[in-house]
Amino acid sequence: MKKMKKIGPVDTLSLVDKVELRLMQYFKENNLKPGDPISREIDLSESLGVSRTVVREALLRLRTLGFIESKKHRGMIFKEPDIINNFERILDPTLLGANTLKSLFELRLILEMGMADFLFEYKTKEDLEELENIVRTEEETSYDKTVFSLDKEIAFHGKLYQISKNTTLQRFQDLLLPVFEYLYQQEEFKNNGTYAYSSGKFVTHRMLLDNLKVGTPETFRNAMRRHLEPHFDRIFNSK
Amino acid sequence: MKKMKKIGPVDTLSLVDKVELRLMQYFKENNLKPGDPISREIDLSESLGVSRTVVREALLRLRTLGFIESKKHRGMIFKEPDIINNFERILDPTLLGANTLKSLFELRLILEMGMADFLFEYKTKEDLEELENIVRTEEETSYDKTVFSLDKEIAFHGKLYQISKNTTLQRFQDLLLPVFEYLYQQEEFKNNGTYAYSSGKFVTHRMLLDNLKVGTPETFRNAMRRHLEPHFDRIFNSK
Repeated sequence: MKKMKKIGPVDTLSLVDKVELRLMQYFKENNLKPGDPISREIDLSESLGVSRTVVREALLRLRTLGFIESKKHRGMIFKEPDIINNFERILDPTLLGANTLKSLFELRLILEMGMADFLFEYKTKEDLEELENIVRTEEETSYDKTVFSLDKEIAFHGKLYQISKNTTLQRFQDLLLPVFEYLYQQEEFKNNGTYAYSSGKFVTHRMLLDNLKVGTPETFRNAMRRHLEPHFDRIFNSK
Repeated sequence: MKKMKKIGPVDTLSLVDKVELRLMQYFKENNLKPGDPISREIDLSESLGVSRTVVREALLRLRTLGFIESKKHRGMIFKEPDIINNFERILDPTLLGANTLKSLFELRLILEMGMADFLFEYKTKEDLEELENIVRTEEETSYDKTVFSLDKEIAFHGKLYQISKNTTLQRFQDLLLPVFEYLYQQEEFKNNGTYAYSSGKFVTHRMLLDNLKVGTPETFRNAMRRHLEPHFDRIFNSK
């Protein structure tokens, strides 16, 4: 009996998928740098042996992802995609599911727990003064220290992200803000903005700031952990 | 003299930009859920009063971002975008600039420093056994403990990300792997894979594992900080 070759899986990529992948490969092989010109649609169509409609659709995708820009009178050029930009366009809390939102909130806790070394490495006198002002304003306007205020939370923590000097992190924080605002409007936070903290050991923004002034990354992490205690509690208890 | 109104800025959004934004707004207003049908291109074109070409391009963008899926014989449906997917398509280290790569590498350090509480909350007996196997294999095959091995690094740290149970984090790690592989091939790491660790206090994977078994998130974070010492050194010294 004739030995049969195994039947392999059918290639399910669409023609546009293939052209998209092929173009990316072509950019890499040619080591394109931002600003380098890209062949015209009609030329690509001829080289690739596919219709202009297919090429156009693939180019549109790459443009949406940020690899291509069209310049007036200059045609298309290659560019380095902005890694946060696409993220930004889809991070709309009202369109994301509960699991995704939870996962993003956890990510925020992880980032704030993990950034201490960068804060101590890059903090300046001016940064500490700015934090001092944020905390003082907060103290002057808060009668009840256990009431949660989103604005003050954002002012203080946003400044910390800024001190980290990591731009990806900062922009990630910026675009997560609507997610947090959305979450804080839910359940536990709905109760007139009041959140009953779980223990007397709660660390305030003032204590975090003092720690950043005279402590170490190690002591700061422990203080931040206590500061975030209500959020950790909420996540680990809702399992 | 006739009081003139100030001249306002010209709206620089293209027609496609506007249709894209309008469609997103329309999805939200109608509180669309994954699987809900979306009007046909021709109907949208009529309702919006723009050409089918413009509608098609806006729809293509939303499809690229993951908000729309075309189903055979069912037309277009709405879906929840996969927040990591777009990221994945652009995170090609050979196409990213040096600053972006540095920023992503720092982000990895921040994530690993920050995930301790999740590891202690979710670790299981099976997880610890799996880590035990990874570490044992590593010990059996490493003659010189100071030689850096990317494979072993990935096996161990990848498992930690998995224990965190945060899917966004896990997938983020998966897609950052090529970035790390790329970075490890550069400069310091090029020297035959050898990396001279900066001090005798270096914490091994074995010590991290022991810590995860009997320690606390606090002791684990301190151990992880020492484990990552060479990377922190490299980043803070290259300023």
